[in-house]
Amino acid sequence: MENCVIFSLSSNKKLTKEIVDILGVEEGKISVTHFADGEILIEPQETVRGKHVFIVQSTCGPVNENLMEVLICLDAVKRASCREVTCVMPYFGYARQDRKAKARQPITARLVADLLQAAGADRVVAVDLHASQIQGFFKIPNDNLTAMDMLAQYFRQRKLGEVVVVSPDHGGVTRARKLADGIDDATIAIVDKRRSQPNVAEAMNLIGDVKDKNCIIVDDLVDTGGSLLGCIKILKDHGAKDVYCAAVHGVFSNNAIERIANSGVKEFVVTNTIERDPEELKAVPNLKILSVGMLLAKSIEAIAHSKPISDVYDMFHHE
Amino acid sequence: MENCVIFSLSSNKKLTKEIVDILGVEEGKISVTHFADGEILIEPQETVRGKHVFIVQSTCGPVNENLMEVLICLDAVKRASCREVTCVMPYFGYARQDRKAKARQPITARLVADLLQAAGADRVVAVDLHASQIQGFFKIPNDNLTAMDMLAQYFRQRKLGEVVVVSPDHGGVTRARKLADGIDDATIAIVDKRRSQPNVAEAMNLIGDVKDKNCIIVDDLVDTGGSLLGCIKILKDHGAKDVYCAAVHGVFSNNAIERIANSGVKEFVVTNTIERDPEELKAVPNLKILSVGMLLAKSIEAIAHSKPISDVYDMFHHE
Amino acid sequence: MENCVIFSLSSNKKLTKEIVDILGVEEGKISVTHFADGEILIEPQETVRGKHVFIVQSTCGPVNENLMEVLICLDAVKRASCREVTCVMPYFGYARQDRKAKARQPITARLVADLLQAAGADRVVAVDLHASQIQGFFKIPNDNLTAMDMLAQYFRQRKLGEVVVVSPDHGGVTRARKLADGIDDATIAIVDKRRSQPNVAEAMNLIGDVKDKNCIIVDDLVDTGGSLLGCIKILKDHGAKDVYCAAVHGVFSNNAIERIANSGVKEFVVTNTIERDPEELKAVPNLKILSVGMLLAKSIEAIAHSKPISDVYDMFHHE
Amino acid sequence: MENCVIFSLSSNKKLTKEIVDILGVEEGKISVTHFADGEILIEPQETVRGKHVFIVQSTCGPVNENLMEVLICLDAVKRASCREVTCVMPYFGYARQDRKAKARQPITARLVADLLQAAGADRVVAVDLHASQIQGFFKIPNDNLTAMDMLAQYFRQRKLGEVVVVSPDHGGVTRARKLADGIDDATIAIVDKRRSQPNVAEAMNLIGDVKDKNCIIVDDLVDTGGSLLGCIKILKDHGAKDVYCAAVHGVFSNNAIERIANSGVKEFVVTNTIERDPEELKAVPNLKILSVGMLLAKSIEAIAHSKPISDVYDMFHHE
Amino acid sequence: MENCVIFSLSSNKKLTKEIVDILGVEEGKISVTHFADGEILIEPQETVRGKHVFIVQSTCGPVNENLMEVLICLDAVKRASCREVTCVMPYFGYARQDRKAKARQPITARLVADLLQAAGADRVVAVDLHASQIQGFFKIPNDNLTAMDMLAQYFRQRKLGEVVVVSPDHGGVTRARKLADGIDDATIAIVDKRRSQPNVAEAMNLIGDVKDKNCIIVDDLVDTGGSLLGCIKILKDHGAKDVYCAAVHGVFSNNAIERIANSGVKEFVVTNTIERDPEELKAVPNLKILSVGMLLAKSIEAIAHSKPISDVYDMFHHE
Amino acid sequence: MENCVIFSLSSNKKLTKEIVDILGVEEGKISVTHFADGEILIEPQETVRGKHVFIVQSTCGPVNENLMEVLICLDAVKRASCREVTCVMPYFGYARQDRKAKARQPITARLVADLLQAAGADRVVAVDLHASQIQGFFKIPNDNLTAMDMLAQYFRQRKLGEVVVVSPDHGGVTRARKLADGIDDATIAIVDKRRSQPNVAEAMNLIGDVKDKNCIIVDDLVDTGGSLLGCIKILKDHGAKDVYCAAVHGVFSNNAIERIANSGVKEFVVTNTIERDPEELKAVPNLKILSVGMLLAKSIEAIAHSKPISDVYDMFHHE
Repeated sequence: MENCVIFSLSSNKKLTKEIVDILGVEEGKISVTHFADGEILIEPQETVRGKHVFIVQSTCGPVNENLMEVLICLDAVKRASCREVTCVMPYFGYARQDRKAKARQPITARLVADLLQAAGADRVVAVDLHASQIQGFFKIPNDNLTAMDMLAQYFRQRKLGEVVVVSPDHGGVTRARKLADGIDDATIAIVDKRRSQPNVAEAMNLIGDVKDKNCIIVDDLVDTGGSLLGCIKILKDHGAKDVYCAAVHGVFSNNAIERIANSGVKEFVVTNTIERDPEELKAVPNLKILSVGMLLAKSIEAIAHSKPISDVYDMFHHE
Repeated sequence: MENCVIFSLSSNKKLTKEIVDILGVEEGKISVTHFADGEILIEPQETVRGKHVFIVQSTCGPVNENLMEVLICLDAVKRASCREVTCVMPYFGYARQDRKAKARQPITARLVADLLQAAGADRVVAVDLHASQIQGFFKIPNDNLTAMDMLAQYFRQRKLGEVVVVSPDHGGVTRARKLADGIDDATIAIVDKRRSQPNVAEAMNLIGDVKDKNCIIVDDLVDTGGSLLGCIKILKDHGAKDVYCAAVHGVFSNNAIERIANSGVKEFVVTNTIERDPEELKAVPNLKILSVGMLLAKSIEAIAHSKPISDVYDMFHHE
Repeated sequence: MENCVIFSLSSNKKLTKEIVDILGVEEGKISVTHFADGEILIEPQETVRGKHVFIVQSTCGPVNENLMEVLICLDAVKRASCREVTCVMPYFGYARQDRKAKARQPITARLVADLLQAAGADRVVAVDLHASQIQGFFKIPNDNLTAMDMLAQYFRQRKLGEVVVVSPDHGGVTRARKLADGIDDATIAIVDKRRSQPNVAEAMNLIGDVKDKNCIIVDDLVDTGGSLLGCIKILKDHGAKDVYCAAVHGVFSNNAIERIANSGVKEFVVTNTIERDPEELKAVPNLKILSVGMLLAKSIEAIAHSKPISDVYDMFHHE
Repeated sequence: MENCVIFSLSSNKKLTKEIVDILGVEEGKISVTHFADGEILIEPQETVRGKHVFIVQSTCGPVNENLMEVLICLDAVKRASCREVTCVMPYFGYARQDRKAKARQPITARLVADLLQAAGADRVVAVDLHASQIQGFFKIPNDNLTAMDMLAQYFRQRKLGEVVVVSPDHGGVTRARKLADGIDDATIAIVDKRRSQPNVAEAMNLIGDVKDKNCIIVDDLVDTGGSLLGCIKILKDHGAKDVYCAAVHGVFSNNAIERIANSGVKEFVVTNTIERDPEELKAVPNLKILSVGMLLAKSIEAIAHSKPISDVYDMFHHE
Repeated sequence: MENCVIFSLSSNKKLTKEIVDILGVEEGKISVTHFADGEILIEPQETVRGKHVFIVQSTCGPVNENLMEVLICLDAVKRASCREVTCVMPYFGYARQDRKAKARQPITARLVADLLQAAGADRVVAVDLHASQIQGFFKIPNDNLTAMDMLAQYFRQRKLGEVVVVSPDHGGVTRARKLADGIDDATIAIVDKRRSQPNVAEAMNLIGDVKDKNCIIVDDLVDTGGSLLGCIKILKDHGAKDVYCAAVHGVFSNNAIERIANSGVKEFVVTNTIERDPEELKAVPNLKILSVGMLLAKSIEAIAHSKPISDVYDMFHHE
Repeated sequence: MENCVIFSLSSNKKLTKEIVDILGVEEGKISVTHFADGEILIEPQETVRGKHVFIVQSTCGPVNENLMEVLICLDAVKRASCREVTCVMPYFGYARQDRKAKARQPITARLVADLLQAAGADRVVAVDLHASQIQGFFKIPNDNLTAMDMLAQYFRQRKLGEVVVVSPDHGGVTRARKLADGIDDATIAIVDKRRSQPNVAEAMNLIGDVKDKNCIIVDDLVDTGGSLLGCIKILKDHGAKDVYCAAVHGVFSNNAIERIANSGVKEFVVTNTIERDPEELKAVPNLKILSVGMLLAKSIEAIAHSKPISDVYDMFHHE
């Protein structure tokens, strides 16, 4: 990791600590000031001239604060003559605004990509982008890492018997199939929500067979949790045995965490791409958090040394 | 349509003719020369100074020829001081290369978007992009029109009784649901292909119930047809009544057309975003081609007059 | 104002109302959603195709939220094929980060200019930029309006007798002279702060004569108020009669408003470039707020009609 | 050649083989797939992270296929984090479209330069561009190598006695003089074609004296051959002894090769910038092909090692 | 010419006067200040908001002063919100640096094109660019007008009898043929300069027959005149009757004008793309200056009204 | 300084000599040709492939010639494949045009920044930019070095006793305070010029106490000298003892040097950012020139070795 420096901004301090410890390097010193009027000032406290800078920051909530931190930091390190700067964004916010679903909507995920490039980013590393097409929003090289292999490994090692992986909506079936592929002999099912008419309540249907089987509902992220947790009931109604949930990014807006605790879900597995308050977690014994620290550390190392990233995943495929 | 000119390049001459006839305008005169050495020369044969130019061209096969025609035409009209130029691309080729599925793959759909912009495009109009995120590959305004309402209207008017809309793969379930929503009381089913191990043959499963029902397999495009036609057998095996296929773009590579004729499909419905030889079609009585001419004509008119495009779809919702 | 639409985002709703009322037009309908996870969605509720869009938004606190609103709105209206979009930013935040004061600092004001341009802004209108050089941070046309003529007119009409305009720091002397020029026979004075050594307390000196005269301390903005209010004491120590404060932008961070109420300042005059809660203001009778509504309305009208803006100031020069 | 990788796309496989053999390196592994629908997929089969990539590809026919291969390959290696990428284009197609000869023509050579840059090219190496001004179409560094020294050396070594170098048109006189300078005591002549009026047949005149001398008609490229071969007759009519032809790029469209065989030309010399089928060549014993392999290999080596290219030409000046 | 304004900078005041008189419009008021330290300030003295601005300026000597005037003027009018700006550059300087003739040379003509675009130019109009490929140095629309038809008309009307048009170098043969085509039955000849070895004097040869004929040496520009005037002797040596010279641009560096007076040339014809001191001209009765005023006026009018420029040339083809 | 080359263009040959001598390197060989017609050609005479090029050039008078030299040189070294190029501009001309002081003015300092970037500059090093905000005109890294510490050191070592540092205008007070901070116990004063009405003569006032004290008038540059020298009288009128002047950049337009000689100023201290004719200086014994050679040499060395520049200033803080 010669001639590299890894900075942590506000969102992922613990994860960054884990990364630098794995890599055996010092974390870069940087000052992040939020002034009384809300403006942010970012000042690297050590030279970055000629160095490859890695900025670790998720654009989770407070998403606009966190995004501006990245942009300002990029401006600072670029003007300070760094050689190259890679944004490591374990959670890439605004990713759901990835198309015009209706007339006159923005495509904010593309906008964010443009902003990062306008501010000087040379490369972006993200984990499980909401849609893999978001890679194409960037002109610069970008690595879309995935924690799905790690999730599959986790459930494989749990040895749950006959498993059905469930997609909570129409758009997530490919992801469900991918997780199922990682768990021996797993089948899939789809929750088929439809709203036939504007004033009629949403109808929920289940396609596929879950009776007497353990189910894993999988999604890339859980936000308010309404959608995922709503699926549990329909699975139970169709005779499912234990229901698990798996998601890469635990956004957990509103009282999502509390609702999970009381949802009847056997276990809810997420990763630490978004940092959580340890106190908050004590009340949710059925929330399991896996770390992407090793995945990111090895990827950063590969990038720094110009080695392929693909080898990084080997660790999730051997038991 | 004052101060506008509509040019047709090589791929959609009949469709363009239909469009200008609907709009009641003359088609713009343009010379398209393919030299003996393979180079192309595009020369507008009338002034475009200060005009809004529309170039109608699908990037269907020969895809690279057709793409270069658009790029060279853009260069020509820009240098000839047109006011604005809109590329109307009923079929937007290379759309399936919209993400890095494996390490070191290109994202050619983004590349094509960049090439169009580098050549001077001010706006792109496409029909049913393979992924709606491709809109975000463009920085310029772009309209992703859809022929799904027209397909839904067609099947609605066929009054097929109990219908199941079938997605031929995991990624198409949202599209299947959308078509089903346009047909009263239709349910959906999914063909669940999986290849558990490299050397093992692909296993095909069906999720959802099709027994004694009419099925409509839907996809955005049909290429060699192998995938779509392969689904017919599994549907029949599961007791389906008649099987229909619907796709917006009829790419029909290799002997796809011939295979459709003999596939046992009741009717295969596509649109004319890709032009076909009338002779070739005579041998396929079960191939039905709907025209996107009105959809495109009305959209071009809306763009030329700075009116919203959304009203264009009203025609598909009244019977 | 034909073919124009004026949108208000979150920060200046009252000011925008004043502007559209002066211009006799309807405010544009736009939906601004802040989701539970902190992400923002902006959706114009009326067509903008072919129109000149004006977005009124100060980047005052919450500065990063407000800035992102502008950027997302720009993306939305550009993709919706507006003809041109002008950002009207009565208060342009991050303006104090306009140079590298120390090694490795960002120049965030330039960054913000780049972000606005990357998102699609065609023109920016601001009021009293912290430094007039910030105009040069933009490549697009930008108008740096000034409320100093209005402030001068206000004090001129107050007929305060012999007046000294005081700059609270070394960088504000030009501004003090400009305000003094607008008030008959006013002289100027400068507060000369210096910190000779790191551990020594800041020394404050006054250059110029204020004895028995009415003083107007002037600055472009007041933030926590510490700096401005701190000057009052030194002026009083030097025998000043009544002390007034004037600033264009009332940022008023922390308990600035409360401190002003108790500062002994005769009157504190700011404008409404930053919106304040009416309730909050009741407790500060010595805080006077002038409106930039007419200034902005007339400027927007001039821009929309391609007329010179300079004539707009005539209204402040006739009594 | 450490940290470099040389890829060959479809057009110059034999030349690339010659180059890597000269340099003593392995050719880079890359997969080039042309799908049934005409789309191309390029996938480097080895890591390019941090490497200097050289892509060898002429944009000869099928020119648009070959050009798209380069563009897609550029996108792939850029997204795969190569350090730098140099396009080695022995024949740079579309070069004759280098100006607007008539109103509303494109300048496709500039367009191609822009496309290469939009796709990510960092440097372009070409051989004998149709016009040296095309170098200025690029903003990136580009090397316009010349095979004229090699052609001159070849004819010098043939010891043809009194030689006249003939330009087949008005625009090639500088090139004729340059070749003549490389052959001792050679003079020049020009074929003066003119079409005085639209409906009148083209008149051909010869300026300069060729009687009883050996002639070498020289051009940068030979396409259908009509122009060059047409000159032979006029030279013979004016009493020329043996007539030779020399061109760098053998495009040979239509039945050019066959016509050369029967043209009465003593020898037709071209280089291998465009690859030819060995079978096809057997029927043309008077077609001599020189290799630019050493020229390109040495140039690539110089670029990779940041050495001047000019020394490369020394090999053609010593006998 | 509604909503247009034509500004003249320092180089072509008389020509601009001629243009505005032909068009029947007022010349735009603009202040051009050259300060004592050499810096330039350009201030339009009337509003340009929403207007199409034409800047008339040749980049003849003092070339760098004149170029900077254009660049600064572009910045001024762009920031003042002009709608569009066209640079009318009768003489486009630095055009001879249009390729890398040797290693490490700049391509300054391309650089100038980039500078104009970086400063905001939307279109460039030039007259007889040194190489027509320079059009491709611009990404923006550009019109390369030609005064060759006017020169041909002039000589045609002179009725000189049997005429040979002579190219003074190898690169100008196409131009010579073009002028010859405009004069009935004219033939061409070429001066063949060569320097066989570094220390050997340049040898000059004539290719073509001029004996007892009137000769017109033609070039795009005459600089020090050494080259053109040097050709007169060789023509005389070969028995030419009267020798004329024709060039579009009269750069006339050093004592070129004086040398022309004494050159024995019958008449030297140039245009007024570069302005000359009337006093200076009195001493050169054999120097004839044609005006491009009508050509430029009609072209500006066509551009302003979005009409084709090609019709402009009709005036030179009827006698 | 491995793999670096330092070129001097026309403006600072002696300073560059000093720099390369300090660094112990050879100056790069480069040919700078000014042709008879005023065009410039820049040709590096040694390879720059893969090297970090430093171009030393002030844009002092003849400012447009000097600026074009830089731009052309940038084009040359970029096209010659240099790795990186840093413009070292001891005096950055056009810096006073850094904002729109009136309607329709250009912001030429931003324009120059854009031109440098368009021509290929990767980094700019300047000394005491007229306004520090000009750093923000650049997107590329730029270092705004300061000679103020050196000036402070000089006056500190002169041990002038009680000193008042005087700002000659309202905008220079911060600079005066900064210099005063570098001289023990120095106070500041301001010359308060005002022009109350258009036709009334400018009134000059002094704010602060200078009686019986030594004064140092400080500015960033001295141009015609009118402003600075005009202040001497008012200081003398107010009873000042000796009056010194200090400025970083000695522009010295018109007869400024002569006027300084006769101004009554005790000593006028400038640096050699702008080169002066030694002959000219002999007549001005009270003009003292300090060298920025060491400052620039050490900064170039730091940049070349990717070390922080801030340490460079240590030399001015130890006596």
